[in-house]
Amino acid sequence: MQTLKIVKIGGAIINDSKKLATFLEKFAALNEPKILVHGGGKIATSLAHQMNIEVNMHEGRRITNADTLEIITMAYAGKINKNIVASLQAYHCNAIGFSGADGNTIIANKRPIQKIDYGFVGDIKKVHTTVVDLLITHKITPIFCAITHDAQGQLLNTNADTIASELAIAFSKKYKVELYYCFEKKGVLRSIEDEDTIIETITETNYKSLIDEGIITAGMIPKIDNCFHAIKHKVHKVCIGLTDMLFNPTFTHTSIQQ
Amino acid sequence: MQTLKIVKIGGAIINDSKKLATFLEKFAALNEPKILVHGGGKIATSLAHQMNIEVNMHEGRRITNADTLEIITMAYAGKINKNIVASLQAYHCNAIGFSGADGNTIIANKRPIQKIDYGFVGDIKKVHTTVVDLLITHKITPIFCAITHDAQGQLLNTNADTIASELAIAFSKKYKVELYYCFEKKGVLRSIEDEDTIIETITETNYKSLIDEGIITAGMIPKIDNCFHAIKHKVHKVCIGLTDMLFNPTFTHTSIQQ
Repeated sequence: MQTLKIVKIGGAIINDSKKLATFLEKFAALNEPKILVHGGGKIATSLAHQMNIEVNMHEGRRITNADTLEIITMAYAGKINKNIVASLQAYHCNAIGFSGADGNTIIANKRPIQKIDYGFVGDIKKVHTTVVDLLITHKITPIFCAITHDAQGQLLNTNADTIASELAIAFSKKYKVELYYCFEKKGVLRSIEDEDTIIETITETNYKSLIDEGIITAGMIPKIDNCFHAIKHKVHKVCIGLTDMLFNPTFTHTSIQQ
Repeated sequence: MQTLKIVKIGGAIINDSKKLATFLEKFAALNEPKILVHGGGKIATSLAHQMNIEVNMHEGRRITNADTLEIITMAYAGKINKNIVASLQAYHCNAIGFSGADGNTIIANKRPIQKIDYGFVGDIKKVHTTVVDLLITHKITPIFCAITHDAQGQLLNTNADTIASELAIAFSKKYKVELYYCFEKKGVLRSIEDEDTIIETITETNYKSLIDEGIITAGMIPKIDNCFHAIKHKVHKVCIGLTDMLFNPTFTHTSIQQ
């Protein structure tokens, strides 16, 4: 099986144009088939402020009314996605931008209203790999923003971590998938202040005690849950850390293992 | 040679959600390989107003500073493009959004500063058909917004009519290309007030006298010049009119002929 790297980048890189350029140059040079998934929270928030549109969050998740969906679509699929694609072209990586609607790749259900009405937020139902795989096979690199669709004409805001893990799972049928969650730390830390306290391996066994001990807290739990979800569904390798881990296999990071 | 329809739609359809939906449903049902090219001027202008960013036009062309480019990227590649793609998916047409940066498809030069500095406006230098053709061959429909890139990381605002004609020319090497410019009239009119005065055929011979007589004026000239440029470079058929001409071959329209 051929290796496919799926890399998710978030605000730590996207909000810093210098860091983003450095990352994209190295990412472009990776020889293996690869997919990039990006969020872009801060840019959407500042655009909302500029347009006098209220920002509502619940437990770190964005409540997405029609105005917010429009902002997200403009910021994620427009501004961030197209600039990443253009930069990668400059580094001779033939990239192509995707939302989940493009190629009918990621179909989601609008999240049902329970305690909270999240609005136009999508929970992924199905990933179609055909179009993306066709492109990968031709050495073209898909760049996903955090938007899906319901296959009935409605775009939906969807968590970028989840998009990355669901793509990883879907492509594991054909590829040996390595899933990299890049964020602002070298890995999951025992002590958030101290970069030397990286937890190098998280397994289901130590995960429970790390939560019980209060070492892994609310913010990290959905991210790590996504990782376990991927690992349990045949994704070969799941890593959390700085982008360096992608380019230097001995660079410290957190590895999620079954 | 297989037929490829390249269809350009502008503000008359994009600014009217009902018209757009009706058009997309019919467009989705077209069996032949097809490409859609869209502008979106008014949406970009109203977004600029909402964000308190000045709009500067010169002879109907937008002067594109960095802020304006950002707005255009958000409106064209984000909002308009992704909503069209999602709608087409709902009508069972597997579509994928493109800017000229995606797949390195359309490379442009930033327009040199002469009397006017148009800013980040691109004049098309080269069309690479590979990625788009790969998708068309697999029955996937590319949807182009009016953005190109300079292959050095810079996105550029580019006239949608020109994108349509340059795509048409590039694909004429492999396909029998039909190029349709859809706008708000049944065709080019002798008398702008009277829809019954359609000029059914414009050739190079009558074009000159139509200009001399003042029947074809400034606004239409760049559009018709684009048409002649296409016809002279082996595009099989070039038509101007309402979207109806696409779905009903006997529907009145203006045909541009050599």
